[in-house]
Amino acid sequence: MKKHDGDRPSLCDVEEKILLHYRSQLPQLTQTIIAHCKEEEGIRHIDYAPIPSKAKTIAILHQYLEIVFPGYFHEEKLDPVNLDFHIGQGVTRLFDMLSGQVINSIRHDCSRYDLSCQACIERGYRITVEVLRQIPSLRSMLAKDVQAMYEGDPAARSYDEIIFSYPGILAIAVYRLAHLLYEQQVPMLPRIMTEHAHDETGIDIHPGAHIGEHFAIDHGTGVVIGETTTIGKDVRIYQGVTLGALSLPKDAGETMRDQKRHPSIEDGVIIYAGATILGGNTTIGQGSTIGGNVWLTESVPPGTQVLIEKPQLIFR
Amino acid sequence: MKKHDGDRPSLCDVEEKILLHYRSQLPQLTQTIIAHCKEEEGIRHIDYAPIPSKAKTIAILHQYLEIVFPGYFHEEKLDPVNLDFHIGQGVTRLFDMLSGQVINSIRHDCSRYDLSCQACIERGYRITVEVLRQIPSLRSMLAKDVQAMYEGDPAARSYDEIIFSYPGILAIAVYRLAHLLYEQQVPMLPRIMTEHAHDETGIDIHPGAHIGEHFAIDHGTGVVIGETTTIGKDVRIYQGVTLGALSLPKDAGETMRDQKRHPSIEDGVIIYAGATILGGNTTIGQGSTIGGNVWLTESVPPGTQVLIEKPQLIFR
Amino acid sequence: MKKHDGDRPSLCDVEEKILLHYRSQLPQLTQTIIAHCKEEEGIRHIDYAPIPSKAKTIAILHQYLEIVFPGYFHEEKLDPVNLDFHIGQGVTRLFDMLSGQVINSIRHDCSRYDLSCQACIERGYRITVEVLRQIPSLRSMLAKDVQAMYEGDPAARSYDEIIFSYPGILAIAVYRLAHLLYEQQVPMLPRIMTEHAHDETGIDIHPGAHIGEHFAIDHGTGVVIGETTTIGKDVRIYQGVTLGALSLPKDAGETMRDQKRHPSIEDGVIIYAGATILGGNTTIGQGSTIGGNVWLTESVPPGTQVLIEKPQLIFR
Repeated sequence: MKKHDGDRPSLCDVEEKILLHYRSQLPQLTQTIIAHCKEEEGIRHIDYAPIPSKAKTIAILHQYLEIVFPGYFHEEKLDPVNLDFHIGQGVTRLFDMLSGQVINSIRHDCSRYDLSCQACIERGYRITVEVLRQIPSLRSMLAKDVQAMYEGDPAARSYDEIIFSYPGILAIAVYRLAHLLYEQQVPMLPRIMTEHAHDETGIDIHPGAHIGEHFAIDHGTGVVIGETTTIGKDVRIYQGVTLGALSLPKDAGETMRDQKRHPSIEDGVIIYAGATILGGNTTIGQGSTIGGNVWLTESVPPGTQVLIEKPQLIFR
Repeated sequence: MKKHDGDRPSLCDVEEKILLHYRSQLPQLTQTIIAHCKEEEGIRHIDYAPIPSKAKTIAILHQYLEIVFPGYFHEEKLDPVNLDFHIGQGVTRLFDMLSGQVINSIRHDCSRYDLSCQACIERGYRITVEVLRQIPSLRSMLAKDVQAMYEGDPAARSYDEIIFSYPGILAIAVYRLAHLLYEQQVPMLPRIMTEHAHDETGIDIHPGAHIGEHFAIDHGTGVVIGETTTIGKDVRIYQGVTLGALSLPKDAGETMRDQKRHPSIEDGVIIYAGATILGGNTTIGQGSTIGGNVWLTESVPPGTQVLIEKPQLIFR
Repeated sequence: MKKHDGDRPSLCDVEEKILLHYRSQLPQLTQTIIAHCKEEEGIRHIDYAPIPSKAKTIAILHQYLEIVFPGYFHEEKLDPVNLDFHIGQGVTRLFDMLSGQVINSIRHDCSRYDLSCQACIERGYRITVEVLRQIPSLRSMLAKDVQAMYEGDPAARSYDEIIFSYPGILAIAVYRLAHLLYEQQVPMLPRIMTEHAHDETGIDIHPGAHIGEHFAIDHGTGVVIGETTTIGKDVRIYQGVTLGALSLPKDAGETMRDQKRHPSIEDGVIIYAGATILGGNTTIGQGSTIGGNVWLTESVPPGTQVLIEKPQLIFR
């Protein structure tokens, strides 16, 4: 296809020569990268054993949302005629997808991993069925969460609008599934789920947190709810609220693992935007209201209203 | 395909038996879930009437961005030769996609919904044409927004860089379209649009807000602009700024709907990162500057500079 | 296909007539939009010269992550048998994809752009090979970043969990690649990369920032790290931390470009959630700890602990 203009090389030839010059350096360069992958072990996963897949985990979440909120996220219309078929197919598909990732996660962590051992498979299927068995009660929880979102938000026009578009309900729905898997001690998978919701919504709920029913998050960007947080029922929080740990020593990763490090929020508490509540011994008593930007590291009794003293403003 | 090793069942057989044991529980489990979907009505959408689609709404936004910023988000190169064809096709496609979702949204909300009534269809097409008619003025607004972003940001290298990569311009472009639909009282769709932009950018602008021309948002993560906010022209805001409502009673969802709950920001105001301005009676006068982390629930006259009194720091 | 019921037009006919009425307005409407695109020049890109593609840039980031964290983000299992092949193919593909976008970015900015000039092509290939040559050292850096994330976070269970799900490591991995391209003065592309990570994670790191090894970001939503920031090694920051510029005059975009506007953070500093550190002359000395919500616009010597004086709370 190349055409020569007498002796002068064509433009294409020149470009091809440049490309060749650089592309010819790739084999050696690739060898160096491969060698480095073989050396630096911490951040690679090269193994005959399977590992969970982030892409498949995201697909699981889509399937799950289609089942708990039927009719909202499906491409086709859901009506009384196709409902049974749709849910039936969805549940089977969710079982297959979820059990696959649960088994991979368990096996990956299993120190006794061996192709001839079926313990991980058995456990994976069992956990998956147990989780699916919770779907009706998950749906009842989520119905109350949607209701809580609606009741407190004058901008909400309908339940539909909340399910379709509110980041808070997405984050909570994903958290409630991930929490069930966390309780069953499935490694990695719960966190991959909640961090996907975090990416989508800016709301970071650790799957280990305990959160009661009728829970509402409004706006939500910047919300952080730590691993050992407990939240009662009828609680409402706004954007930028942190329920976190007190400042930690540098090696906290090792010494503080598995300790209660995050606060307890009792029933009926409202926490306004930007408030920070820290520490495993901090309890916010029932029915309290925590004002915007408040910074709390100690408990308050039930029924307390905590406000920040208005900072002095300078007007010029 | 199964092979038996004498009398001992093969590994595959064992695994299959385990799978069968658990998978055989699915039919009954599915029945329970279906029954629950039929019972718990609030969070399902099972209906012969259509409902808007989130996926299709996101596709509409992509098509819209291709038209208002031609050449930036298209896979193929846009040049003077294919421009007319590209825009022509794009506008037709946008009409088809957008009218479909507008009609579904209107019909879904229509209490007199009836297959033999064409009022919703008629209204949907009319609104769509009216919105498309606004595209030139939308483009002029967005050109000024891009310019405003560029003027105030020393890190910006070119308009191209802003259009390609700044979350602020994406959030504003989506808001300006959604606002037109909100003004036409299209239900759900405007909010699905702005919440998609919120997911992408961390910037939460309610489609009901009124925002003047030459508007800039820098960084933007955590910005919240409430439904009844009004913003003049030449306003600039930074990450973490909340233009919100005062604290609300628990049933605010019902009692405060449709009231002015969010502040008014006059022309030429700058609001720095983390500032919070609350309340429907709060007006920030023309040309004022609100410092970072300021918390304001009252009006300030034009030309005011508001700073937070430096909090006492403890140095150890 | 249309059927008439005697003289009465069918429903389909009525709907079609409505559609036709509105659709027939599209040609003229499209002409107005095309005319506007030809007029309003700032926010269109209609040119024979190529321009970078956001979609292809995101594909590059996926390929890059597959190479630096082999085995984590690939659909198929990576094991010792297919490793060489997988990495080899990945590096070639990355070279082709990345050089294409680097060349488009350079050419787009080149004032002397001319089809017969190969300088941009030559430069683009050279830069790409140089960047690929850095992959082993990038991997070593990222291994230390993962380790830093693990050490300081009691909720982290394994390196795997961090690589799979922590937004901080995603933001840092993308930043470290983008920074290499920024150093080579590739226009647009570095920022498109880091803004994509910003969309995904809520963490906004400008590609121009300098960040040392063993760097950790926890939670991360709302973090902003400005263009001229320098960060030493062993630094740890939390959600909502801003390393930004002091308030700027309105035309700062022009006058402050290319000046040092953002702080310097020395080795071993920890900065807790919501802290704001501003200004090009502000240096946080080695080993200092900056408490949550602290607002700093001046330097502090090494070893300082800075806390905000507890704001007075009002309890009712």
